[in-house]
Order: sequence, then structure tokens, then C-alpha cells
Amino acid sequence: MPPVPPPEPDVELAARLFDTLRENTFDGIGITRASFGEGEQFAHDLVAGAGRDLGLEVAADFAGNLYLTQPGRDRGAKRVVFGSHLDSVPKGGNFDGAAGVLAGLAVVSGLAKAGATPAQDVTAMAIRAEESTWFPNSLTGSRAALGTLPPAVLDEVRRSDTGRSLADHMGELGFDSERVRRGEAYLSPANTAVFIEVHIEQGPVLIEENLPIAVVTGIQGAIRWRHARIVGAYGHSGTVPRHHRRDALAALVEFGARIEKRWAELDAAGRQMVGTFCTLNTRPGKAAMVRIPGEVDFALDIRSTSQATLDEMEALISALVSEIEARRRITFELGKKTDLAPNICDAGVRDGLLAAARAAEVRFKEMPSGGGHDTQAFLEAGIPAAVLFVRNENDSHNPDEMMEIPDFAEACRVLMGFVAAHG
Amino acid sequence: MPPVPPPEPDVELAARLFDTLRENTFDGIGITRASFGEGEQFAHDLVAGAGRDLGLEVAADFAGNLYLTQPGRDRGAKRVVFGSHLDSVPKGGNFDGAAGVLAGLAVVSGLAKAGATPAQDVTAMAIRAEESTWFPNSLTGSRAALGTLPPAVLDEVRRSDTGRSLADHMGELGFDSERVRRGEAYLSPANTAVFIEVHIEQGPVLIEENLPIAVVTGIQGAIRWRHARIVGAYGHSGTVPRHHRRDALAALVEFGARIEKRWAELDAAGRQMVGTFCTLNTRPGKAAMVRIPGEVDFALDIRSTSQATLDEMEALISALVSEIEARRRITFELGKKTDLAPNICDAGVRDGLLAAARAAEVRFKEMPSGGGHDTQAFLEAGIPAAVLFVRNENDSHNPDEMMEIPDFAEACRVLMGFVAAHG
Repeated sequence: MPPVPPPEPDVELAARLFDTLRENTFDGIGITRASFGEGEQFAHDLVAGAGRDLGLEVAADFAGNLYLTQPGRDRGAKRVVFGSHLDSVPKGGNFDGAAGVLAGLAVVSGLAKAGATPAQDVTAMAIRAEESTWFPNSLTGSRAALGTLPPAVLDEVRRSDTGRSLADHMGELGFDSERVRRGEAYLSPANTAVFIEVHIEQGPVLIEENLPIAVVTGIQGAIRWRHARIVGAYGHSGTVPRHHRRDALAALVEFGARIEKRWAELDAAGRQMVGTFCTLNTRPGKAAMVRIPGEVDFALDIRSTSQATLDEMEALISALVSEIEARRRITFELGKKTDLAPNICDAGVRDGLLAAARAAEVRFKEMPSGGGHDTQAFLEAGIPAAVLFVRNENDSHNPDEMMEIPDFAEACRVLMGFVAAHG
Repeated sequence: MPPVPPPEPDVELAARLFDTLRENTFDGIGITRASFGEGEQFAHDLVAGAGRDLGLEVAADFAGNLYLTQPGRDRGAKRVVFGSHLDSVPKGGNFDGAAGVLAGLAVVSGLAKAGATPAQDVTAMAIRAEESTWFPNSLTGSRAALGTLPPAVLDEVRRSDTGRSLADHMGELGFDSERVRRGEAYLSPANTAVFIEVHIEQGPVLIEENLPIAVVTGIQGAIRWRHARIVGAYGHSGTVPRHHRRDALAALVEFGARIEKRWAELDAAGRQMVGTFCTLNTRPGKAAMVRIPGEVDFALDIRSTSQATLDEMEALISALVSEIEARRRITFELGKKTDLAPNICDAGVRDGLLAAARAAEVRFKEMPSGGGHDTQAFLEAGIPAAVLFVRNENDSHNPDEMMEIPDFAEACRVLMGFVAAHG
């Protein structure tokens, strides 16, 4: 006898709430939902109201994160959490963040409407303050829920538009920043079995490969130099022969070509990374036609889901710098390096998602995430977690984000299948 | 019996005139001798006066170029001319141009003081208006002497500081622009056997190789794109995998590396060229950290003494553009190309200079000239001509030009040896 199919997720509710969100947080150009601000609060109120209408348990933690729960058979068992954030960048899109919250809501609504009682509590979570444009800090809301937000952030990090502290903004909305300061954990490995975040893909891969969803292998770490430069010597572009030159830009071209060569080799070997010279500029007023450029400024961003790959690229860069400096008689001034460690998504959760996708006959691929996500805070706190991408056009953080509801529905069906398999 | 050594050039006179020139055309920062202006006129008067004091024949042509001649045995024979220009760029150096005039003067003064009568007339020539900062036109004075100045230049090209036409400035100093307009040739292959221009090297080669002089093989031509760009697509530097990218800067890096690779091969094969990406810029306000740069602007300057090499590089660039466009899904917009044909110095004159240098035991090398020189106008007019470089520090067109008189003296001795061998 075939297994009983899982309940259908309530995609219709989610679609309606996407529209309501857009109508009420449109700023004339795009979507604006400031962290601990008006747009985010509207979204939280909207989702909480929907949860109450459905008879779900509705709760907020001391930091203002919201939880809508369909109770399980064993209330003492660790819960399953599906969520993401409800804030947006200024003039952003409607789907970055909200898709993960409304996917969770579609699942718990589907369970509630079907009268299904899962093995353990299933919760849709709406996280605060993920977009660091507002509070220039990473994963503020999720870390507050997990008790891992550095206390200094509460006082020292100020919202970019108001200039007021995070603690101030939390207090204004009635939340208790003192419990955040003490590192209380509303969610922990002791009470949370798994966290899964549905998120729009912020690149073109699913569009170009014509697939609705992807199971994310990991969230890339990065090594990054924002203010690097090469200093050589200016000279006449006609009168200085090849071996007499100290051409900063020629050094950069060699440096860049050799980084790309290694990238191509890693790519061919199936080892994930991306590398980008984001900006590159000779000096205005000094560089000119008929001059050899003696200085060049650049920014370099290298990312991988593998720390070993990042370490290998850093070693390569270090070796290239020494070799090119000596041969070309120029100097690299790489400046401050930023390191971000990669996070590998939990293998068990990924396997569960892959199995659920196959069972639901949803086509998918596995791929890394280039952007950061709340899921990282859960992985760092020791909670098994993973990300499910939904196909999306035009990247993210702009009004042109374009996720189609049928693709979103596929992701919701995978989540529902995951619950059924683990319920 | 050993051959009689040639007379010594009058380097002392030249050194004294260099000092007088500096003292009288110093502008507080560098040397300023405007074409058909005060500083240039001072220099012409100074040199003409020195010629009269020496009893040389002193003449000016209808365009204001000056000739100091030590008469030869056969007044009907074609003359030997040593010269260069006396104008300078604003805030320039004392040696660019003047070195060639005073080297010619040192030779004719040396002949005159020794009572030597060469086989044919030997002339030191002071040319007008070589520096195109003043009249934005190439080789104005020498082309006027040779009857090859396009007549329109007289009316249409205006001096950058006064806004007045070339014809106006010629007339103001008493010269006859109508004869220039008619294309009269004061110097021609019919009356001029050879033109040799001593000039300071405008690069570091002789300094770095510790040699006093060089015999110039040719004056480089160029292919040049001043306003080129590559257009790809912006994207998130974390989320777009390698094969989905349309990275304009990565395309430029490949383009640059492959041009340099070919340059290195040509260099190894002894084929002369230089190539420079003079400027390179991503777009401010569009390119940023965490973005793939979708546009890059650049300027490319490729020079060679060989037209075949320029043609080959242009074909390579064309092939690279097609290949990289197709593979990387970007577009090159190279914009307007400027072509300058190379000039090869006359082989017979070069051989004469090489022989004279060996006879005078002056160490030398052969090398191309990166900058343009009056010699080109003579070559174009069919007069055998060549350039002799003198070691010089800190390039040219700046107050730090640094030619040492002992090196200059070596060049003068080579000219004198050339006269003796051809006299």
C-alpha cells in the first residue's frame, strides 16, 4: 500500500500575504522594511495575525523574533523550525527573507487546516534584523534568539537611518534587550531539532538551468581585500622598454590572470569557489594616455564553501605577490583582509531535503549559497540546519526580484514532505 | 700613417649656451620656450649671435628656422645638417631639443675654430615649433622648412595660450607664411645630403645600461585606442558561478594577459614593440565590493618601429576580441583607433654614425625612439636622416631632465667624426 501523501502546504495563504506585504511596504520604488522599523513591524503583525486566525500558537521571543507553531504529539520533543527574516534592504524586493517565513507559514497552515498533528512541534519563524544595511552587523535577530549576539552590539551598533542603538530600537517595540545581553537562548540544540530556511536564489543559476529549487550545500566563506593596491613607477609608454618597466597595471593583469587560471583548474576538479576583482582603477590625474600606470587600486573578493580552498587561494595569492613583486619591481599593498568562515549545511538535513524533493518529484540541483543567511547562526550554534533555494530572476536586494509562486510552492511541498518523513 | 684626427667639437661653447638658455628661459619651475614665442625667440637670437661671432653664415628660412653654416669646398654640393628644435613644453627641461641644436653648433664652431673646410657645407639648424603643446600639430617647423606642412595648419591651428593662428605668429616675428602656404621647400633631397638629430633619450635605457649614447634604429609608430570599453553584466560576486558570469574586468584581464604574452614572444625574438594599458577603470557608483563589474573603460597604446609588428598586433587584438566576446558573453567597444606609421632611420646614415662612434671609441647601443622627432619630417621628405640619443635621467618634458655634458660631448665627437668621414 502506498504511503499516505503529506498534506498540501497552504500556498494560497502565502501568495495572499506576499501581495499584502508588497502593497503595504512599497516605498514608491521598491520594498522597504527597516529592521525593528515600520515595514518589518507591519510584516510581523501581518504574519502573527494570520497565525492567530489559523489557531496556531503565536509567540515572540525577548528579541522580537516571531514563532507560529502547530503543536506536535510530543510537546517535549525538539521542534522543527522553518524560517527566515522579514526585514528588507531599502528599495529592495518583496521576496528576500519573506519567502522563507511564508514558506514556513504555508506548511504550518497546511498542517493546521488538514488537522494533522506532527510528531513534534513544527514552527514557522520570522526573524528580525537580518539585512545589515540597517544595523551594520551580521545575523542580528537570529543570533539574539540563539543567545550568541555579542552584547556590545546592542549599544554600539546604530541603525543607519536613525542613529539609535539596537537596544533602543528593541525597547521601543517592547522587547527585552537585557535578556539578549545576558545571552539567553530562546532556541538551542536542546529544544530545536532542525532549522530550514527557504530563500530566493540571489544569482542566475536556477533560471539558467531551468530548475525550480536547489538544496544548498553550504554558505560560502570569503577572503576579501577591499582597499588593495599595486605601486610601481610611472613612465612614458613609448620610451620605456619591457624589462625596464615597473607597470602596476601589467602586474595586476598577470596577478588576475593567474588567479583565474587556478580558479578554472579548481572548477574543472569540481571544487567550489568564485573570485572577483570587484573594482579596479588607475589614478585619475596621474594615469593618462602615453603614460605607464604607476599605481592601481583594486578590491578582490574570493569565496568558497571550503575553508581548505580559501586557505589554498590565500597561499597562492601570497606566492603570486612575492613572485610578481620581485620580477616586476612593483609592490603590492593588499591592506586589511576580511575573513569569513564558510558554513557547510548539515548533511543529515540536506539528505532529508533531497529525499523529500525526490518523493515529491520536484526537480532540483545542489549548489552553494553566495550570500549569507540566518541559517549560519543556527549552524554556528550547533543546530542542524540547511537552506532551500527557490528560482528567482534579477538577483536580490532590488525591486526586480522575481520569484514565481509555482516554484515557491515546490519548495513548500518539499518542506511538507520533510515534516512527513520526520514526523 | 694614421689618419688625421677630426677637429674637436666646441663643447665649451655649447655648455655655456645651455647655461645662458636656462638662466633666461626659466619660469620659476622649469623651462618655458613657447613656439614662435618669447623663450624660443630668445634661444634663436642667442644661437644666431653665437654664429655671427664665429663668422659662420647665418640665415633664416621663410618660416623662421635658423641655419648656421660652415661653408664647404664645394658650395654646390648637398649640405650636411645637424639640428633639432629650440622650443620647449611649458615648465619643461633645458635639454629636449636644445641639445640637438647646440650639438650642431659645437660641430660647426669646432670646424670654424680649426679653420677646417669640409667637403660640403655643414649646417647647424635650429627648428621652430616642434612641441605640439603650443600649436597642436606635428613637426610644424621642420615641415614648414621642407614644404610639407598642410596649408590649412597655418590658419586652423591656434596656439594654446594665445588662441592666435600659426600664420599670425609667424608674421609677428617677420616670417613669410605665404611661402609656407605655397609649399616652398627651403630644404629638399636636392640640396640636403643628410639630417642628423641629437636628442636626449626620453626613457631610462641608457641610464640603466650605463651607456652615453645610442644610434636610433627608428621612431615608433603606434596603434592606439583612447576610449575603449568592455560591456558585460553586473552581478553579485558571491552568487554567480564562473560559467554564468559576464565579467567585463575578467575579460580585460584575459585580453591584457594575452597581449602581454605575445609581446614577450616578440621581445624574445628580437622584434621591437611596447604595449601599455595606460588607464583602466571600473565605473564609480556602479562597480562596488560584492559586485561583478559589468563595465570597464580602458586606453591601450601599442608602438613599434615595424609596421608589420603593428599590423600583427592589430590582427591579434581583433582575433582576441572575437574569441573573448564569444566565450565570455561580453562586448568590446574599442572606439576610435589612432594610427601612426613608424619611421625607420636611414640605414646609410645609421651605418655612418656607428662607424663614427667606433672610430671615436664612444660606447653606444642601437635602440628605437619612443617619442616623435623632427627627423621624421626629413625621412618623410626623402632626406636620409637619423637620430642620436644622449643619456638623460628622469625622462623629458619636465624640469628634472638631466643630461651630463660629458655624454653630450661624446655625441658631438660622433657628429664630428661623421663629418670627417663624409667630408
